[in-house]
Amino acid sequence: MDRAQNNHFSRSAVLETSATSRLARIRVVLSHTSHPGNIGATARALKTMGLRQLVLINPKRYPHPDAEARASNATDVLEAAAVVSSLDEAFHGTVLSVATASHAYQLSQPLVSCREAAKMLIDATAQGDVALLFGTEAHGLEADEVRRCMVAAHIPSNPGYTSLNLAAAVQIFAYELRLAALGDVLPATEQLTAASDEDIERLHEHLEAVLTEIEFLDPQNPKRLLPRLRRLIARARPEKEEVNILRGMLNAIVKFAKR
Amino acid sequence: MDRAQNNHFSRSAVLETSATSRLARIRVVLSHTSHPGNIGATARALKTMGLRQLVLINPKRYPHPDAEARASNATDVLEAAAVVSSLDEAFHGTVLSVATASHAYQLSQPLVSCREAAKMLIDATAQGDVALLFGTEAHGLEADEVRRCMVAAHIPSNPGYTSLNLAAAVQIFAYELRLAALGDVLPATEQLTAASDEDIERLHEHLEAVLTEIEFLDPQNPKRLLPRLRRLIARARPEKEEVNILRGMLNAIVKFAKR
Repeated sequence: MDRAQNNHFSRSAVLETSATSRLARIRVVLSHTSHPGNIGATARALKTMGLRQLVLINPKRYPHPDAEARASNATDVLEAAAVVSSLDEAFHGTVLSVATASHAYQLSQPLVSCREAAKMLIDATAQGDVALLFGTEAHGLEADEVRRCMVAAHIPSNPGYTSLNLAAAVQIFAYELRLAALGDVLPATEQLTAASDEDIERLHEHLEAVLTEIEFLDPQNPKRLLPRLRRLIARARPEKEEVNILRGMLNAIVKFAKR
Repeated sequence: MDRAQNNHFSRSAVLETSATSRLARIRVVLSHTSHPGNIGATARALKTMGLRQLVLINPKRYPHPDAEARASNATDVLEAAAVVSSLDEAFHGTVLSVATASHAYQLSQPLVSCREAAKMLIDATAQGDVALLFGTEAHGLEADEVRRCMVAAHIPSNPGYTSLNLAAAVQIFAYELRLAALGDVLPATEQLTAASDEDIERLHEHLEAVLTEIEFLDPQNPKRLLPRLRRLIARARPEKEEVNILRGMLNAIVKFAKR
C-alpha cells in the first residue's frame, strides 16, 4: 500500500470512528406502532446507517415474530430495544428532541427539513443523547406529542402522496443522520492519476497527425473537427494510462495502414 | 393571504411543477427482484417522492398479491410498471444510466455517492429520460450489469452492516432525487443533445470491431482494454454529434487501411 492510499484509509477509519460514537447517541423513538413488521424494519434501517438505540412507546403488538423476520440480521438492535410507556421515559436524559411531522400541525416550534434536523441532532450529540420521535402508521404523531418536542422536522415528500411507510421514513432520517455524522465528507472513491496538461497536448498533436494521415482531417479545410475533439477530451478528463492507451491506438492505426 | 405568502406559494407551485416534470423522466429499473413485496414497496417509495416510472427486468414472481399489498395507494405506479427481459430494453432511449453498487466491483466507471448521482440524473433529465438500476435482494447487481451503466453510485452505509432492504435503498435514492429536483431550478446553461444509450452501445461495438481489425485488440487476449475505453467514454458523456464524429473516424480508419 503506498502512502497516499494509506492516508486515505486512515482518514476513512477516523471518520468512521467519530461517526459511530455520534450515531450511538441517537435514540429513535417509535410511538404506539401498530405493525410489528415495521418495528423490525426500523431496527434494520437503523443498523444499516450505524444507529443502535431503539425505544418503543406502547407498541400495539410486541414482541412478535414479524418484527424478527423484518429485522433481518439487525436482531441485536431489536433485542436491545427499550419498551417504555411515556414520552417522559423515552426522552429521559436527552438534550434535544425532534418530532417528525408529516403534515401541518399548529406548531409551537420551528419546522425544519430532515436534512437540517439531522445536522442539529448530530451537533447536539456533542452534549449528550438526543431523541427523534416517529408516530403511528395511520396518523403520525398526536399534536401533543409534537408539541412536547423542541423541534419538528419533515421529509419533503410528494404533496399528492405523502404516505411514506414508517420504516422508510426512519430510513431516510437515519441516512441523513449518517451523512451528517460523517460531516458531509464523503470518502473519496477512487485515486486516479490524472494526465498532465503536457500529456493531453501531446495527445492532441498525435491525433491531428494521424487524422490528417488517414485523410479524415483536411488541413486546408479543418472545419470544427479539432475543437470538437478537444471539447470531448476535456470533458472526459483522461487519466495518464488512458492517454497512453489512446496514443497506442493511434500508433496501431498508422502501423496497420502502412502494412 | 398577504403578498409575501402569496409569492411564496406561487414560487413553491412553480418549483413543484418543474420538479414533477423532471422526476417523471426518471426510470427506476429493478433487475431480477425475488420478492414481490419489494416491488410493491418500491412503487410506494417512488410515489412518495413524485417518481412514476418503474421498470422490472425478469421479476421472479410478478404480478403477485404481495406487491399490491405493499404498494398501499401507489397501485397506479405499480400497474403502469413495464416488465421487460433485458437491460437494453430497460434502458432504451435513455441518455444516462446509473447502477447502484453496494459493494466493490472491478468498476470500469466512476463510483459516486447517491447524492452526487441524484444531481447527475436530475441534470440529465434536461436532455431526456434517465435510468437508475437496482439489483437483487440477495446479491445486488451482477458485475456485467454494473459495467453496462455509465455511472455507479453507492449509499454510504454502515461498513459493519450494509444490508439495506431493496425498497429502503430505492427510498433513499428517490428522496435524494426529489431534493435534487427541487433544488435545481436553474435552466441548463447549454443545450446539448446527449447521445442515447443505443448510440453509445453502437459506438462500443464499432470500436471493438475496428480495434480488432487493426490488430490493436486481440480477441483471444483482450485484457482490460474494452472496459477501460468504456469507462473513458462514460466519463466523457458524448453528445450525439460527437458519437457521429467518432464513428466517422472509425470508418475512415478502415477505409484508409483497405486502400
